[in-house]
Amino acid sequence: MTQIARGLQGVYVNETKLSLVDGMGGRLIIAGFPVEELAPNAEYEEALFLLWNNHLPRKAELAGLRREMADQRALPPVTLDMLRAAAQAEMPVMDALRVGVDSLSLSDPAPGDASEEANHRRAVSLAARFPSVIAAFWRLKQGEEPLPPDPKLSHAAGYLYMISGERPHPARVRALDTYLNTVIDHGMNNSTFSARVIVSTRTDMYSAIVGAIGALKGPLHGGAPGPALNMVFEIEERAKKAGQSMQAAAEAWAHEALDAGKRLMGFGHRVYKVRDPRADVLDRAAVQLFQGAGDTKLYEDARAVEQVILRVLEQHRPGSNIKTNVEYYTALVLQGIGLPVELFTPTFAVSRVGGWTAHVLEQIREDELIRPLSEYTGPVDRKWVPLEERS
Amino acid sequence: MTQIARGLQGVYVNETKLSLVDGMGGRLIIAGFPVEELAPNAEYEEALFLLWNNHLPRKAELAGLRREMADQRALPPVTLDMLRAAAQAEMPVMDALRVGVDSLSLSDPAPGDASEEANHRRAVSLAARFPSVIAAFWRLKQGEEPLPPDPKLSHAAGYLYMISGERPHPARVRALDTYLNTVIDHGMNNSTFSARVIVSTRTDMYSAIVGAIGALKGPLHGGAPGPALNMVFEIEERAKKAGQSMQAAAEAWAHEALDAGKRLMGFGHRVYKVRDPRADVLDRAAVQLFQGAGDTKLYEDARAVEQVILRVLEQHRPGSNIKTNVEYYTALVLQGIGLPVELFTPTFAVSRVGGWTAHVLEQIREDELIRPLSEYTGPVDRKWVPLEERS
Repeated sequence: MTQIARGLQGVYVNETKLSLVDGMGGRLIIAGFPVEELAPNAEYEEALFLLWNNHLPRKAELAGLRREMADQRALPPVTLDMLRAAAQAEMPVMDALRVGVDSLSLSDPAPGDASEEANHRRAVSLAARFPSVIAAFWRLKQGEEPLPPDPKLSHAAGYLYMISGERPHPARVRALDTYLNTVIDHGMNNSTFSARVIVSTRTDMYSAIVGAIGALKGPLHGGAPGPALNMVFEIEERAKKAGQSMQAAAEAWAHEALDAGKRLMGFGHRVYKVRDPRADVLDRAAVQLFQGAGDTKLYEDARAVEQVILRVLEQHRPGSNIKTNVEYYTALVLQGIGLPVELFTPTFAVSRVGGWTAHVLEQIREDELIRPLSEYTGPVDRKWVPLEERS
Repeated sequence: MTQIARGLQGVYVNETKLSLVDGMGGRLIIAGFPVEELAPNAEYEEALFLLWNNHLPRKAELAGLRREMADQRALPPVTLDMLRAAAQAEMPVMDALRVGVDSLSLSDPAPGDASEEANHRRAVSLAARFPSVIAAFWRLKQGEEPLPPDPKLSHAAGYLYMISGERPHPARVRALDTYLNTVIDHGMNNSTFSARVIVSTRTDMYSAIVGAIGALKGPLHGGAPGPALNMVFEIEERAKKAGQSMQAAAEAWAHEALDAGKRLMGFGHRVYKVRDPRADVLDRAAVQLFQGAGDTKLYEDARAVEQVILRVLEQHRPGSNIKTNVEYYTALVLQGIGLPVELFTPTFAVSRVGGWTAHVLEQIREDELIRPLSEYTGPVDRKWVPLEERS
C-alpha cells in the first residue's frame, strides 16, 4: 500500500529563515525574534523590512521604505473601476481584495522583468496597496468615495484613515501595529504554502499573492475571527436579559453549545498544544487599548467568558487541554481599534501579505518546482463506447 | 536532522479517481480510459462530463451539458471591461485569462452557495467561459471587437470561431478535441495541486481556479509549448540558406545547441522515463490533420528533426534515454489547427480547466485542510534594538 500524506500533516516541505512555529513549546519566532519581543515594539514597516532583509532597518533604510510605500499607495484607475464593479455586485470584502489585487498586475511598470530587484519592488508595492484596496472597496460599498492616501501617515495609521476619514489616535495605531506584527508570518500555513506552490513554476508574484488571498478567505484558514466576539456579545445580552452575572450566563451558554455539538470559535488550534503565544501578545495590546480608552467593560467581559469557557471545555472533554487561540484576542483588539467585523479577515491579509511576499522571494531563490504525486484508485481499462450504444 | 521533502518529489498527497500517470510504463489513464482510447474518440464535452461524473454521458446527458455550456458562454459586461483594460495594458494572454476569470466571480448568481450543486454549476460555467475569455481578449488585443458565441457550435469549434470569425473545418475541430482531451488531466501536477491546496481551506471555486491559472503560466509548467516548433522553423531556415537537407541542418543545429549547454524544448519530462503516451496520440492527430489539409511538409520536417535530435541527444548523454515530450506534438497540432503561438498555453488552460474543476470537486468532498511544515534554520533569540541604537 502506498502511504498517503493526507493534508501533508507532519511533512516538512522546505527550509526557511522567516518563522518558527513551535506548537509544543508555545513559541513563535519571526526572523529571529520571539513574537513578544518584536510585535509590541516594531512599527509594521520595520517588521516588513525585517522579513524581506533578515535584519531590522537602520534609520535611512526605514525612511527609504516608508517613502517607497507612500509612493505606491494610490490605486491605478483600472483597479478603482474593478472595485466599483465589485461594490455594485455587493461582493464580500475578501473577494474584492482578490480581484482588486489581481487587477494591480495590469499596472506593473515592467511586467516581464523577473529580476530580484523587480520582485522586491512588487513586494513593496503589494504590501503598500493592500490597505488602499480594502479601504477603497469598503467606502464604495457604503456608497462613499475612496479617500486618497495621506503620505504623512504610517502604514497602520493610513489604513485606519482611508477607512474612516479620521486621523486615528496613536493608541489605536500602536494596537494595530502590534496586531499586524503578530500575525505577519506563521510557518508553512495554507495560504503561504499556496503562494510558494504557485510561484515554484517561475510564474509572477501577482499570481502567487492572488492565490494566497483566495486561500486565506477559506473558513478553515483566516475566514473566522469575527464569530469569536459574537459569542461574548450573545452572552452579554443573555446576562442582561436574565439579570445574571457574566459568569453564570457564560456557563449556561457554554454547556448548551457543547451539548449541541457546536465548535467554539476562538478556542483550539491545529498546531499549538499550549497557549498560542500570539494570544498573550494580543491580550496585552488589548489591555493597553481598552484601558487607554477608559472603557474596559468589553475586555473584562471577554476575559470572564474565556475563563468560564476554558473550565467548561475541560469538564466536557477532560484532558483535551484546549486553549484560547489567536482569533479570540484578534477579535478583541480589532474591535477595540474600531474596525468593523467584515474587515477582520481583510486586516489579517494586510498583515500576512508581508509573510507571503517574503516566502515568495525565498521560494524564487530556492527555485524548485513543487510537484507531488497522487494515488490512483479507479479502473484502468475502460473501453470507448460510441454515444449511440451507451445505456 | 529533519527530512525535507523538497519539491514534494515522490510524496503522495491524496487518492484520486481522475487520472493515473504511469511514468515508468508510459501510460496515462483518464477516469478509467487509456488516453489513446479516450482522446481521439471523444468530443471535449464528453471528456468533461466523464471527469465530473466518472462515466461517459448518455445522449440526454450530453445534450443537457451542451445546452448548459451554451447558456454560460457569453461574458458579463464587467469581464469584458476588464479584458479591454488588459488589452490596453498589452498584458500577456495568460495574465488576461487570470484577471478575466477572476472577474467572473462578480457575476456568480449565488456567491455564498457552497452546495455541491452550486459548485457543479460553477465548474460548467468556468469550463464554458475559458474560450470566451481568451478569444475576446485576443481580438481586443488585435484591435477587433469580441464575437458573441455561436450556440450551434461545439466547445472546440466555438473556440476557433470566436478567435477567427470563421466556422472551422471539421478536421481542425477534431484535432482540437483530441488535443483538449489529451491534456485534460495529468495527476497531481503543480496547477492542479495549487487548486486543491487553495480549496482545502473551504474557500470558493473561483479562488482555486484563479490560483491554478497563475501556476500554469509559469515556464516550468505550461508556459513553454511555443519554442518547440521555433526550433523546427530555425532549422528549416538554415537548411534553405545552406542548401542542406533537413537532417544535416538539424544535426549541426543540435550539436551547437548542446555544446552551448542549451535545454532543448520538446524533449525530456520530469515524470515520463519512456515516451510520453500523449505524444503518440498527438502525433496521430497531427498526421491526420496535415494529410487532410494536403500539406505535410511541416509535419515531415518536424519528424525528421525529432529523429536527428533524439540521436544527437543519445550521443551527447549516452544512456540518458531522453524522449520527445508532449510539448513537441502539442506545438505541431496547434500550429496545424491554425492557432497563433501566443494562444498555445491559453489553449492548454482551455483543456486543463476540466481537470482543475474535477479535482476541486474531489477535494471539496475529501474536505481535509492541506497544511505542511517548514524547517526553521534562522536564529531564535534576537533582541529588540530601538531605531536610534541600530548600527
